[in-house]
Amino acid sequence: MTKTIVLTGDRTTGSLHIGHYVGSLRNRLKLQDTHVQYLLLADTQALTDNAHNTAKVRDSVLEVALDYLAVGIDPLKTTICLQSHLPALAELSMLYLNFVTVARLERNPTIKTEIEARGFGRAIPAGFLCYPAAQAADITAFQATVVPVGEDQAPLIEQTNEIVRRINAEAGYEVLPVAQALIPASGRLMGIDGKAKMSKSGGNAIQLSASPDEIAAAVHAMFTDPNHLKVSDPGRVEGNVVFAYLDAFDDDVIAVEELKTQYRNGGLGDSKIKARLDDILQDLIAPIRSRRAELAQDPGYVLDVIRTGTAKAREVTEATKHEVMRELGLFRL
Amino acid sequence: MTKTIVLTGDRTTGSLHIGHYVGSLRNRLKLQDTHVQYLLLADTQALTDNAHNTAKVRDSVLEVALDYLAVGIDPLKTTICLQSHLPALAELSMLYLNFVTVARLERNPTIKTEIEARGFGRAIPAGFLCYPAAQAADITAFQATVVPVGEDQAPLIEQTNEIVRRINAEAGYEVLPVAQALIPASGRLMGIDGKAKMSKSGGNAIQLSASPDEIAAAVHAMFTDPNHLKVSDPGRVEGNVVFAYLDAFDDDVIAVEELKTQYRNGGLGDSKIKARLDDILQDLIAPIRSRRAELAQDPGYVLDVIRTGTAKAREVTEATKHEVMRELGLFRL
Repeated sequence: MTKTIVLTGDRTTGSLHIGHYVGSLRNRLKLQDTHVQYLLLADTQALTDNAHNTAKVRDSVLEVALDYLAVGIDPLKTTICLQSHLPALAELSMLYLNFVTVARLERNPTIKTEIEARGFGRAIPAGFLCYPAAQAADITAFQATVVPVGEDQAPLIEQTNEIVRRINAEAGYEVLPVAQALIPASGRLMGIDGKAKMSKSGGNAIQLSASPDEIAAAVHAMFTDPNHLKVSDPGRVEGNVVFAYLDAFDDDVIAVEELKTQYRNGGLGDSKIKARLDDILQDLIAPIRSRRAELAQDPGYVLDVIRTGTAKAREVTEATKHEVMRELGLFRL
Repeated sequence: MTKTIVLTGDRTTGSLHIGHYVGSLRNRLKLQDTHVQYLLLADTQALTDNAHNTAKVRDSVLEVALDYLAVGIDPLKTTICLQSHLPALAELSMLYLNFVTVARLERNPTIKTEIEARGFGRAIPAGFLCYPAAQAADITAFQATVVPVGEDQAPLIEQTNEIVRRINAEAGYEVLPVAQALIPASGRLMGIDGKAKMSKSGGNAIQLSASPDEIAAAVHAMFTDPNHLKVSDPGRVEGNVVFAYLDAFDDDVIAVEELKTQYRNGGLGDSKIKARLDDILQDLIAPIRSRRAELAQDPGYVLDVIRTGTAKAREVTEATKHEVMRELGLFRL
């Protein structure tokens, strides 16, 4: 029985935060025990909206790899590889661009939203508009059938499958498998300011490398309920960052539900729930931080992990490329 | 002193005709003695508007290579290589797409004209819109500074140079050379029906492999001057295919000018000028046809030429790719 292949990864635009932990890393730790898992350090994808900030993209490669290893991604179970060093991904991307129209790319809901969010206006880099085809190349090159993504990314998987069906129709048989989006039940972790998107650049994130003081300061600064002034006041749980984080990180769900009831009724102060969350986050991050610091002392090892993973990924992706080119009927030298 | 590098090539969508001979092949025969010349069998570019006709694209690879060798392209002087087997071209294309906007690609005059000519409407394959970036990748990967193109293709070289300047600005020094379009003085050879574009699919071409009868039939069918009914009538030289071809192929320019005067004044029949042209074309094509037939008996040799050329081209293009990636500041494994 062949194991299901899972592809995930991160754009290398900064070190990772606890939002990544909740949204994906935690899940990957489980997946590596049950699936064939590839983790893509997506530096070329990061360039599609960071062409003028290559230093950030470059420097984040090691940072993200450190985060992976620090949280417990095991390079013996998970293949960590670097996108820019896998030529087959670019070759398949260029091929796939012939099987999708410009109009279809422009209609992609994820792309539309992201173009607006980035304020590109008419100056959309062509690479950005085309990245769904590049993502299709990534997914198919690894023959991945399960792709864990955020809800907002689901249209990209649909687009991948459209391309897959066209290639298969052209080839006359199923040369590429259809992929399935795996959307985490937990949803996205809000920022400490209550904004929907946590990001390092937004200043509302807690990094996986955060020091005890940074964690404490972030928890202290968390948005709760601005109308909950006295301990005795009834407080709102919805949109309250502390409770959102307790939901995400506190394993004792019964205790959390009791705290919510107490908070709603009045009589529970922010400082109590923040103290509880601080404990939990300190416990979560402490071992990650120390492993990360240890690994950071040995960049040679981290490089080796990426090199070995990329070499392995190269074999897999080259094989797919050759198969696609052969089955599409290109000339073979 | 390093020799100037020239890149040309052909989309592999059919064997070549005498229009190619006049417009480019003849020129390449000279260039191979004075320049470092690469000839690209552009199969992946051909896919940008032939994604559903891969068999034609594939089968034309050997046909075009045969044409090259038959007209006298010398593989010891000119490197003949296959685009789909040069991964660096796709990798550079994907990089360059980040340095050009969608709006700029849509404004490209060549692309606009070709989109109309192909009747794509809104269903433009993304690969087609993006091919100027792919062409920039081709040109720069070989570090070519001279690019012989038709007049209508000149905007593509301008677009290449825009990308080159952006990459150089980003890298902080001239990692890529600016290229110059070399537009042949002769202009484009019209079809035998007088239409501006000669093409095999248009049925108005004379292939380089044409038989003596095919040549004779084509010359016989040539559009001249529909009002030149009797030998004694004055005839029009402009738009007259036979004279256009005599201008292109007859080395005795003085004799041709005399014939033109005679034709204009009346007293020179079509059959006379057609006989002259037939002789010239028979003499031109006979040795090409026989070399082509000979080479076609030995596809292993032709394959070897392409393999050797592609291996050499791979070294050059990989080197450029590595330099560009390094100078842009990407991560190095």
